[in-house]
Amino acid sequence: MNIKIRWGILGPGTIAHSFVEGLKFVKDAELVAVGSRDLTRAKDFAKKYQIPKAFGSYEELASCNEVDVIYIATPHGRHYEDMLLCLEYNKHILCEKSFTINAKQARKIFQLAREKRLFVMEAMWTRFQPAIFKVKELLARRTIGNLIMMAADLGFNFPFNAKHRLFNPHLGGGALLDLGVYPISLCQYFMGIPDELTTLAWIGQTNVDEICSMTFKYQNGRMANLFATLRSHTPSEAVFMGSEGILKLNAPIYRPTSITIQKPDGRQRFIEAELIGNGYNYQAEEVVRCLKTGRLESDIMPQEDTLSVMELMDSIRAQWGLRYPME
Amino acid sequence: MNIKIRWGILGPGTIAHSFVEGLKFVKDAELVAVGSRDLTRAKDFAKKYQIPKAFGSYEELASCNEVDVIYIATPHGRHYEDMLLCLEYNKHILCEKSFTINAKQARKIFQLAREKRLFVMEAMWTRFQPAIFKVKELLARRTIGNLIMMAADLGFNFPFNAKHRLFNPHLGGGALLDLGVYPISLCQYFMGIPDELTTLAWIGQTNVDEICSMTFKYQNGRMANLFATLRSHTPSEAVFMGSEGILKLNAPIYRPTSITIQKPDGRQRFIEAELIGNGYNYQAEEVVRCLKTGRLESDIMPQEDTLSVMELMDSIRAQWGLRYPME
Repeated sequence: MNIKIRWGILGPGTIAHSFVEGLKFVKDAELVAVGSRDLTRAKDFAKKYQIPKAFGSYEELASCNEVDVIYIATPHGRHYEDMLLCLEYNKHILCEKSFTINAKQARKIFQLAREKRLFVMEAMWTRFQPAIFKVKELLARRTIGNLIMMAADLGFNFPFNAKHRLFNPHLGGGALLDLGVYPISLCQYFMGIPDELTTLAWIGQTNVDEICSMTFKYQNGRMANLFATLRSHTPSEAVFMGSEGILKLNAPIYRPTSITIQKPDGRQRFIEAELIGNGYNYQAEEVVRCLKTGRLESDIMPQEDTLSVMELMDSIRAQWGLRYPME
Repeated sequence: MNIKIRWGILGPGTIAHSFVEGLKFVKDAELVAVGSRDLTRAKDFAKKYQIPKAFGSYEELASCNEVDVIYIATPHGRHYEDMLLCLEYNKHILCEKSFTINAKQARKIFQLAREKRLFVMEAMWTRFQPAIFKVKELLARRTIGNLIMMAADLGFNFPFNAKHRLFNPHLGGGALLDLGVYPISLCQYFMGIPDELTTLAWIGQTNVDEICSMTFKYQNGRMANLFATLRSHTPSEAVFMGSEGILKLNAPIYRPTSITIQKPDGRQRFIEAELIGNGYNYQAEEVVRCLKTGRLESDIMPQEDTLSVMELMDSIRAQWGLRYPME
């Protein structure tokens, strides 16, 4: 069988460009349509990537019969309504992270998708990259003994702009949902759901977290330290600490291509885990694989994991007392 | 004037050996006596380093008229009483860290020392090393722009042994006082006293913290992430994160000899800051300098800083509900 999965792009922003570049590496994927609230932007995007259809509204894209799955590339403040629209028109979905603003929204989406037997997956692209599989394998082989602690971070110094989505609470701004989701999702993947957490944030003048720091504690004697910031650069790496050494997932945490293992005696081992494509292709390959085999969710990025991450982010914000205006 | 400062060693344990090796590099310092509760140990130590006097009790050492300053190298659970003894006999003091078990003890020691006009300093040896001065200078020159965040850690996998001082609450065991004091003191030195802190610890079967994690928040929009553990190896480094880059104080955090600066565009700069001697000499040099100039405390490691660190550690333990049996 050589059926191609037909993709539509909802929201032709920066991330959509990267995704489409990645999609070029995916077998059995065909890019058939793009939708924007601005027809000119849609047409420009379609022209650049030779996409047959360009729509001036999300609804036209969602209702297009030639589209199987829609990649949602809007800011996370819009994901919930954009996903509802796609589900309404019976489209499968790959949705950018943060998946939604809160766990309540995520739960509704997954419930509706299950009822309609539609595939929905969070676009946590990092999780599908070779370096992450390599970390899983190395930890399982007890290369660093028992895993005891994990630390991970992500940060950039973004120029302050009250109207930019990163600083705008109406668009779910802040470091947590935009950057923190990477270390948190990585931690959830390798360590599971913590039994206890504590967090502090630096809340800026637009009432979003410009710096956030989280400590997770697990009943099995493990702990994790995570932080994210919009105000400074950070190492952007993840460190797994074990009884017999350290495993460093080298920067950048969202697209790692190498691992360094340090043993207590000073020995170091450098392991390359190069990407084919730009890294966005792996998650799209997973979507194609799932759709071609009739699966409604991915084993690697199951809906339960997305929900756990959203619940963690809800708990974190609850400790700060930060609610978004639309909640 | 060529007056030599005459040193006594109280407690000939592992750290005392390192200290004495360091003292060899210190001008105007003379090692005249060693005291142990075990005369044989004192004699063995004295023989190894050609020290004129060996005492079988701390009191004999403290009362020895030929000693000006005593280096206290016992476990921190003993520091308070050992310092009281030395002050009683009008001896100046360099005391290992953690300085005491809690801030209350530290306050009493400093008050008594002031009354008796005696010099007392915490042996936070790292603070006197060239790499730390270099970090101060680089941050002051705004090499990484505005300092926004700091992260630091220290950890080793110590085999569990309920009777070992590290795991023994009666000796002030746990990761915080033994290892956490390094990242906390470093953070206090560069970032000051936080306005808010949150922490979680993994408390083991002997009721001491085997893993501890701390987040500090400052009113000026800065934050810090620190952790320490007895259960796993950690990178053992400190990272200063700024608006225009990252400064990494390379491992090991307690005796750093190099700094790496990473700019957002990927440029890296490696700066060596080599030690003369084994690193323990710098703090001893400071003691000699202070005593020769009649100073009662160090500018670099003032008593207020030691007190701040002890108060922070009190607050951290209060959040865990951990009190030592002797408190």
